[in-house]
Amino acid sequence: MPRLEPERLRDALREHFATLDVDRASVEHVVASMVETSLRGVDSHGVQLAPHYSRAVRAGRVNARPGITTVRREASTAVLDADHAFGHHAGSTAIALAEELADASGLGAVSVVRSTHFGAAAYFALQSSRRGYLAFAFTNADALVAPFHARAPFFGTNPICMTAPMDGEEPLCLDMATSRVSWNKVKLRREQGVPLEPGWAMDELGQPTIAPHAARVLAPSGEYKGFGLGMMVEVLCGLLAGGPAATEILPMFSAPLERRREISHFFAALRIGAFTDPACFRARLQGLADAVRRMAADSPEHEVMVPGDPEKRHFAERSRVGIPMPEDRLQELITMAPAVARAVLP
Amino acid sequence: MPRLEPERLRDALREHFATLDVDRASVEHVVASMVETSLRGVDSHGVQLAPHYSRAVRAGRVNARPGITTVRREASTAVLDADHAFGHHAGSTAIALAEELADASGLGAVSVVRSTHFGAAAYFALQSSRRGYLAFAFTNADALVAPFHARAPFFGTNPICMTAPMDGEEPLCLDMATSRVSWNKVKLRREQGVPLEPGWAMDELGQPTIAPHAARVLAPSGEYKGFGLGMMVEVLCGLLAGGPAATEILPMFSAPLERRREISHFFAALRIGAFTDPACFRARLQGLADAVRRMAADSPEHEVMVPGDPEKRHFAERSRVGIPMPEDRLQELITMAPAVARAVLP
Repeated sequence: MPRLEPERLRDALREHFATLDVDRASVEHVVASMVETSLRGVDSHGVQLAPHYSRAVRAGRVNARPGITTVRREASTAVLDADHAFGHHAGSTAIALAEELADASGLGAVSVVRSTHFGAAAYFALQSSRRGYLAFAFTNADALVAPFHARAPFFGTNPICMTAPMDGEEPLCLDMATSRVSWNKVKLRREQGVPLEPGWAMDELGQPTIAPHAARVLAPSGEYKGFGLGMMVEVLCGLLAGGPAATEILPMFSAPLERRREISHFFAALRIGAFTDPACFRARLQGLADAVRRMAADSPEHEVMVPGDPEKRHFAERSRVGIPMPEDRLQELITMAPAVARAVLP
Repeated sequence: MPRLEPERLRDALREHFATLDVDRASVEHVVASMVETSLRGVDSHGVQLAPHYSRAVRAGRVNARPGITTVRREASTAVLDADHAFGHHAGSTAIALAEELADASGLGAVSVVRSTHFGAAAYFALQSSRRGYLAFAFTNADALVAPFHARAPFFGTNPICMTAPMDGEEPLCLDMATSRVSWNKVKLRREQGVPLEPGWAMDELGQPTIAPHAARVLAPSGEYKGFGLGMMVEVLCGLLAGGPAATEILPMFSAPLERRREISHFFAALRIGAFTDPACFRARLQGLADAVRRMAADSPEHEVMVPGDPEKRHFAERSRVGIPMPEDRLQELITMAPAVARAVLP
């Protein structure tokens, strides 16, 4: 599989989005998020989305030059109107504001209304934990997950992301869909022609299926628990922001690209020093993570890891050898932005 | 099975804890929490714990007359030292303080250190959502759940509770252990002599078991997701509060009752009006919940419900017919507090 050198890829993508007259902050965040996310191994939310985003800008779904405004603000909370900005830009603005509120009051929470797809939730929370905060990022999404015991989709994959600074490495990072598996795993099995695991998905009639092309609905993670968490993410996002929720949200790929989706997000940042000594916190968290990693595994093929460990390994490897890109996706990127060809490693 | 009339049971328990010289606020909260939790059908965290709590007070683990103090306070955050109070009292104090902070700043978060078992997390969050807030409650607990792919316990069942006010009924309430099933389900199968479901638990050697008496370790909910959530609950509790964490925490039942456990909790309350119109929020949430409840189920024996619905049904039924109590547990309660006999329904 071809591999792409991250720096040259970043330059090519920046150049492409700048030619679409996208403002500087939006370009910086959408490109930084896509490349970092691909380096972390989360291909579904990385540079493979660039052609979709490019079309979404040209069709008008994403506002290339948004005026993000603060609608409400109190000592520890705010609501931002994203004006249909790239979610990557809106979210980065929101988490920075949450930190500003946390600096002054201990904790800050920012709700975002009228945004678009924000990529990987981890992009925002990691920024914040690198700056020393405990951070949270949530978003709603179009209906794809069935409530427990139901057969039709109602809430989106509504992810939960929480990060915390560690002592000698990148932050601890949990970024999980509230469905049993992400939609991307289903798409990957389609491409590979491999059946799904039982319990992952249902077909359009709501019948359980292991046929990847028949899958239309995802099962929640951990039965009623994942469903309940997904519903609570919608409470924090669409309901608090006053934006569309659940089945009201337009689907990302099948809705016309000129239609605006009005995605809602919720971010929070907590200043650790408002609670305890930050250095002690980081040292204890590092100790806990290392103790978990040293535990005996249930089989020789497994290792015991903490949240974010698989992504840290991908990051280290892909930073060295480049980002793998399936041939058809690579051609799509090059058609969109010819300079991507210069990033292909020999 | 004998059934207990809730009001007379409440009186008998209040009287008992008062004779142990427990202060008025502690008595109110520990009794209100136990009876409400039993009415909601969560027997593991209800009045069946009264004899344990009674012994814990007499042995000195629980401080009957605590001086709960505010150790740190900023505009939206605080840390309380619970002085080994009943967790039910410490938590109620903390959530009320979180609301006070939210009134002034939009959002309040309160960390509690040096507490004891707090019963059901829902008791605190429900209080707060009845008063109109979006509320969160978390606690750590002694090591019982294996990390994903590990065979020994590391974190506790570390529950996540979130509640939100609805329009014409009790708040929406998600209160879930981050393990696949609660320890109580294992204990119940022991009493019934029924095997466990595969994947619930492991024995003392870390081997999967369906023998209820052999189970020593619980599996996380949703594989790595429940483990990750449980670790993040510990970050919010033991690490932010600066108290013991994970395997440092003394076990609730097997540690000597004079040993203090120093449990940590974390609470947050969010004033909905800081984000959106509260009446609109409640109406939309009610609409979403009702839409989920109307969905077709995957089999005739199932219904589609939202978080907290099973507990609402138990509450309605048990308020009418009384709280069922196994004969041996009833005798234990009567031995502790003879007035409980007056609550037994004919």
